[in-house]
Amino acid sequence: MDLLARIRSEMLPFAELLGVEFVSVSPEKIVAAMTVRKDLCTRPAVLHGGAVMAFADTLGATGTILNLKEGSGTTTIESKTNFIAPAPVGSRLTGEATPVHRGRRTMIWQTRVTTAEGQLVALVTQTQLVL
Amino acid sequence: MDLLARIRSEMLPFAELLGVEFVSVSPEKIVAAMTVRKDLCTRPAVLHGGAVMAFADTLGATGTILNLKEGSGTTTIESKTNFIAPAPVGSRLTGEATPVHRGRRTMIWQTRVTTAEGQLVALVTQTQLVL
Amino acid sequence: MDLLARIRSEMLPFAELLGVEFVSVSPEKIVAAMTVRKDLCTRPAVLHGGAVMAFADTLGATGTILNLKEGSGTTTIESKTNFIAPAPVGSRLTGEATPVHRGRRTMIWQTRVTTAEGQLVALVTQTQLVL
Amino acid sequence: MDLLARIRSEMLPFAELLGVEFVSVSPEKIVAAMTVRKDLCTRPAVLHGGAVMAFADTLGATGTILNLKEGSGTTTIESKTNFIAPAPVGSRLTGEATPVHRGRRTMIWQTRVTTAEGQLVALVTQTQLVL
Repeated sequence: MDLLARIRSEMLPFAELLGVEFVSVSPEKIVAAMTVRKDLCTRPAVLHGGAVMAFADTLGATGTILNLKEGSGTTTIESKTNFIAPAPVGSRLTGEATPVHRGRRTMIWQTRVTTAEGQLVALVTQTQLVL
Repeated sequence: MDLLARIRSEMLPFAELLGVEFVSVSPEKIVAAMTVRKDLCTRPAVLHGGAVMAFADTLGATGTILNLKEGSGTTTIESKTNFIAPAPVGSRLTGEATPVHRGRRTMIWQTRVTTAEGQLVALVTQTQLVL
Repeated sequence: MDLLARIRSEMLPFAELLGVEFVSVSPEKIVAAMTVRKDLCTRPAVLHGGAVMAFADTLGATGTILNLKEGSGTTTIESKTNFIAPAPVGSRLTGEATPVHRGRRTMIWQTRVTTAEGQLVALVTQTQLVL
Repeated sequence: MDLLARIRSEMLPFAELLGVEFVSVSPEKIVAAMTVRKDLCTRPAVLHGGAVMAFADTLGATGTILNLKEGSGTTTIESKTNFIAPAPVGSRLTGEATPVHRGRRTMIWQTRVTTAEGQLVALVTQTQLVL
């Protein structure tokens, strides 16, 4: 089973609920897509900020996992999001996570969430502790 | 209709999906509860970091709304979370949001998410733009 | 030598340059003062945001040090600041740092910087790695 | 007078104190250098985290200024730093700030601080309010 198939077969319950779809995964980059469903929205009907952060968190954690030595685990210790533009209901988002730092004790990942038109929706930077 | 009834009657779709329950609301403090359902978890079965952030974001935005002049709106422009302890499946969380700053152009709210035993799960600080 | 005298005798070079004055120190709270000198300002003459962050970083790191076991060290791995109000040249600031979390692997400290009139200037939250 | 000469002639007092040297400036990118002097250090003798943040803050604010319409001003409302590696005394740092977002109400800039060897020292993301 290749890496993408493995990640898809191990979807986290909350990532399932959000409808996160992994597109490509490697230790250097994680790409995933998500459709802005009505039940993920705030009012007016744009993606809830919390759903944006959850989408990104899932990607950054997955990227970290692909860089861990066997027997290690990870947990997000902090996450920072800048929200730039709303993502309207029905739109299709792409998240692209790349590493800022891959150390023995911590890893830092940054995720750009964009619309199909290339509009930046949010920029998320998170620190993962290596356990 | 009092303030709490009004807020409950205007639940955002994503807050409904997460099962956010408002307990008390005022312009000075927002308190809400949430049960860690299985489908909100990561693996192992503790609340997904994204769900923690979404819970807090909902509270901070609600607090801001209660401080807006009529005709104004708000949007979260940035959010920062420190994750302190995991929240196991089945546990009951409380979120308490209080204002750090309530200005004409921005408001800053901080939310503490704790377990029933009083363990701090996360601390979230967010900036809301007043529109 | 008591704790305050010890901390004062071990002033970091950059804290000296900024004119940080420790007022009281304990493992539960660090209080320090700083005068907004002209050479610490931006234009117009209010304290440069970087000087605010440096002031707070010094306090949070000191608080962590007072909670370390012998032989351990610490480094700031991330820091988040919200700026609320300007601090005019000549004003006298107080910084008060308290722990959000004191764990084996990380500590989180939050520092409130206020003017003599009690106006909140900035809120800083930082994570220290325990080494 | 070209843009670089103008920025150099308007150095902020605190940027002078830190020894910030602008290398190139444009509305799309700000590059500056700084030498890690002894009096900018913590103990052991590596650049104080506060000095790193102040260096970056100066660059992000300058970038914003170059994108303002005449008559507008700006203030940093929040700043987030991830610290990745120490910068030893005597080393020469480069800061490179690029825009994440340039809007009417806010601008977001990200600054990478690196050593001469290309080691990433810190990543700073800041939001500037347009006044």
